[in-house]
Amino acid sequence: MKKEREQENTNKKSKLKIIPLGGLEQIGMNITAFEYEDSIIVVDCGISFPDDDMLGIDLVIPDITYLRDNIDKVKGFFITHGHEDHIGAIPYVLKEINVPIYATKLTIGIIDHKLKEHDMLKKVKRKVVKYGQHINLGCFRVEFIKTNHSIQDAAALAIYSPAGIVVHTGDFKVDYTPVFGDAIDLQRFGEIGKKGVLALLCDSTNAERKGFTMSEKTVGKTLDKIFDDHKNQRIIIATFASNVDRVQQIINSANKYGRKVAIEGRSMVNIISIASELGYLSLPDNILIEADQLRNYPDEQTVIITTGSQGESMAALSRMASGMHRKVSIKPNDTIVFSSSPIPGNEKSVTGVINELMRKGAEVIFQDVHVSGHACQEDIKLIYSLVNPKYAIPVHGEYKHLVAQAKIAEELGMDKDHIKILSSGDVLEIDEDGAEVTGHVHVGNVFVDGLGVGDVGNIVLRDRQHLAEDGIIIVVMTLESGSGQVLAGPDIVSRGFVYVRNSESLMDEAKTVLDNTMEYCMEHNITDWGKIKTEVKDALGDFVWKETKRRPMIMPIIMEV
Amino acid sequence: MKKEREQENTNKKSKLKIIPLGGLEQIGMNITAFEYEDSIIVVDCGISFPDDDMLGIDLVIPDITYLRDNIDKVKGFFITHGHEDHIGAIPYVLKEINVPIYATKLTIGIIDHKLKEHDMLKKVKRKVVKYGQHINLGCFRVEFIKTNHSIQDAAALAIYSPAGIVVHTGDFKVDYTPVFGDAIDLQRFGEIGKKGVLALLCDSTNAERKGFTMSEKTVGKTLDKIFDDHKNQRIIIATFASNVDRVQQIINSANKYGRKVAIEGRSMVNIISIASELGYLSLPDNILIEADQLRNYPDEQTVIITTGSQGESMAALSRMASGMHRKVSIKPNDTIVFSSSPIPGNEKSVTGVINELMRKGAEVIFQDVHVSGHACQEDIKLIYSLVNPKYAIPVHGEYKHLVAQAKIAEELGMDKDHIKILSSGDVLEIDEDGAEVTGHVHVGNVFVDGLGVGDVGNIVLRDRQHLAEDGIIIVVMTLESGSGQVLAGPDIVSRGFVYVRNSESLMDEAKTVLDNTMEYCMEHNITDWGKIKTEVKDALGDFVWKETKRRPMIMPIIMEV
Repeated sequence: MKKEREQENTNKKSKLKIIPLGGLEQIGMNITAFEYEDSIIVVDCGISFPDDDMLGIDLVIPDITYLRDNIDKVKGFFITHGHEDHIGAIPYVLKEINVPIYATKLTIGIIDHKLKEHDMLKKVKRKVVKYGQHINLGCFRVEFIKTNHSIQDAAALAIYSPAGIVVHTGDFKVDYTPVFGDAIDLQRFGEIGKKGVLALLCDSTNAERKGFTMSEKTVGKTLDKIFDDHKNQRIIIATFASNVDRVQQIINSANKYGRKVAIEGRSMVNIISIASELGYLSLPDNILIEADQLRNYPDEQTVIITTGSQGESMAALSRMASGMHRKVSIKPNDTIVFSSSPIPGNEKSVTGVINELMRKGAEVIFQDVHVSGHACQEDIKLIYSLVNPKYAIPVHGEYKHLVAQAKIAEELGMDKDHIKILSSGDVLEIDEDGAEVTGHVHVGNVFVDGLGVGDVGNIVLRDRQHLAEDGIIIVVMTLESGSGQVLAGPDIVSRGFVYVRNSESLMDEAKTVLDNTMEYCMEHNITDWGKIKTEVKDALGDFVWKETKRRPMIMPIIMEV
Repeated sequence: MKKEREQENTNKKSKLKIIPLGGLEQIGMNITAFEYEDSIIVVDCGISFPDDDMLGIDLVIPDITYLRDNIDKVKGFFITHGHEDHIGAIPYVLKEINVPIYATKLTIGIIDHKLKEHDMLKKVKRKVVKYGQHINLGCFRVEFIKTNHSIQDAAALAIYSPAGIVVHTGDFKVDYTPVFGDAIDLQRFGEIGKKGVLALLCDSTNAERKGFTMSEKTVGKTLDKIFDDHKNQRIIIATFASNVDRVQQIINSANKYGRKVAIEGRSMVNIISIASELGYLSLPDNILIEADQLRNYPDEQTVIITTGSQGESMAALSRMASGMHRKVSIKPNDTIVFSSSPIPGNEKSVTGVINELMRKGAEVIFQDVHVSGHACQEDIKLIYSLVNPKYAIPVHGEYKHLVAQAKIAEELGMDKDHIKILSSGDVLEIDEDGAEVTGHVHVGNVFVDGLGVGDVGNIVLRDRQHLAEDGIIIVVMTLESGSGQVLAGPDIVSRGFVYVRNSESLMDEAKTVLDNTMEYCMEHNITDWGKIKTEVKDALGDFVWKETKRRPMIMPIIMEV
């Protein structure tokens, strides 16, 4: 019976497999494989930032076991835009799977910078693609379609496969009046929709929000008003480094009001230099100055554009707020503008920085100087109506965002069975006759900590959490080889447990508990180190819990001479 | 000259000192001392919850060194309402400063419960005060004035001192149509204002928000609509345990739609039992059932009221969401309502719980089923206009909230010099002739961790942060007494650093580094243990940083036999 079915399958046309390897449990770590017979192409290759409980972790990259296991099939990576959650894992993943990367000009520019930092520029092939251009790779043809987003040169992808056309929006918004370049190519979405689209993978980030997303240009007007209202103050504006259009508008306002502009923050400096080199940023002559030169101009003739809009403790703005910045000190005559909104999870740090700035006497403007880069509900409806897909696969979001988009698709009259909410690792097999999840591949988080990739796993994290919670008590002793007699110790050292100088009696009693435990071991001929350690852990653990209601990590170490 | 001035001061009438001992850098840990000559009264005695970097800390109480140093002056505590940030530190502080507590009936009921848990009920005097009642204590007379808040029986205080009248609003909102009891006693605020008020200490929590705060009753209407729209589902509603009016309204809706109510979460059960005993909650006959009994009723005839609206990992709702709750499992037929909004810092945990609930197929309603308990800008203007104080002292907020209230006071025409933004510890000396900060007393955070109060300080916290970031490497060795020869070790053990099984070569190399270091010490006759430890720390630290870009805590331990 099984054989028969297999036979039948071979005769039939193959199905397209859509396999998200990340990005469906969170906003971050986007990477999706499209597989048809012996071809795999991958869309995006992003990181995510660590959760609060991922102690000490710098960033998180996707587990790409599936691609590694099918390395011969993998033909290339298509990158929709240059944000970290879409490109950040490239240096790590391409070390293992070295295939060409296809993206638009600015996106490649940003990827190049990243590869250079990892000394991989010569090893990886990158191809700049223009909107409207088609790339043939294995069984696939991929077309880049112009969209708008909070970074320039964002693209949606039309993926032509033998099983049908799939449209992947990437991250997008509908901006009829973008600051730079063209509006989203709605006509092309419509044209492809007319051909008949098998599936739409659409950005869910703002699927819970009603209405339309405002044009980036509206921020320019707000900025002009702020410049107009603060003619006698120095202005410091924090925003996302990668939002070149935002930076352009700040520069435009600065130019209009006769101010010089200094750029602070490494990532901001990098992106601005890439964008202006590639022609995505137009800088009036001599408008940029170094932070060192600020002192040569009166406050009211300067603007500082800076990183740190998310309250990141090491970013330029936080260092200014805490008085740790080498070149810029906050003064009562400063007006500080947060041209951003806090990413969920960052609210408290942002507020902390705002409070610090205000304490230094500065005026802080932190509301309504930002618009989102993602489509809201009415924009999502527009794309669905143009593309008119047979199947809807909400992507780029937490579960609640995916559900919100699914509801929109349903409202538009789509059959519930044709709306597929996937989990990372799901294998969706799809063609004109149907779409269903037929399997699950291994996916997960790989932690990057310093230079280490994957050497910190759940055990190490659990230890860090344990250490963070109640610290550690180390018990050392030296035993005599053979007799097992205690020659030195047991001694106690603790870190992160209690302030020992105030807790001497507690530590003395703990020492007594240990002495008694060792006496007990000797009396009962317990000489096995493992058993001794267990006795020590149990006795000391019970004592400490009774006395303090804490459970520090207890670590007995035995030496032998 | 100095003596002369002192002489002059003695002849003059004394000034009132207002000394906030907490609550001015955050929303939390409210406690303010009012001192006139040899009398001190204290308003509120709250805790705050630990920040993310206060690892392992359970709660934070104020440092009351100033009260301890002036213990003979302290006459009593006046508590404005029963929230943790106003009462939570009572069991800790009253252990040291045992004076009577004055508060309204429900507030005392909640304090009693707390004192019972700490086995202090017999040791501390509590006095129930009615609205309008005046308490004479030392040089002070204190009157309780009815207000509205997200907990019943909230009071503002009029503090009559020889230097003038000070009005402290406590936490308040203006609710013309409260669910239980009377609206805020605006007439009395006006009456006292007419007498002439020296200073107003007013709640700043919502001073950034425009308009008026909605009445609690509006939530009842929303709840009714939800019950009406979900007649076939089980309904689970998460809200703040202490918001008895909210619970009352849920019970009202349940009663109207013929549902039984089960209560989940220890704090919720406690408050409901206190409130109904004292007559603040009216329960229709037989409406409450135990969670065990839920199975005896069809889903559509039950409601569960639960804790966990802030995504707290151990609260009932989170345990339901993660399938860890013993009595309630989430089902696709559940409608879960968050009758709350996330407290800043909790956004991500709340979203995490929402996603988990949705994944189990439940419908989740998390917007617009809540109103704030704090006055917005127009309400604040109303109170200022009624009280018409000579001096404004914004309280209960982060710096940005205090600044927002200061702006409101300015808008109302108050002289900028008469608006005092204080920091915790500031001593404001005030009377009809002026108000200025004349000194600063010791204030700070005391950390409570398990049974320990104050035994975890900044050093322990820094160690925990260090351990959390990169773990610990312990180096042990046994030296021969006298000769200093290495008899055993150096051995390495690590926790929270790397997953050792994947990093064997790294650990082997580290061992070599240590062997070389010890050889170096022997060769150079370095026998001082402190110096040996420094050599070990430096050599191993450098090696580990070079190889991994991490800085684990390195802890050499030497034993001697």
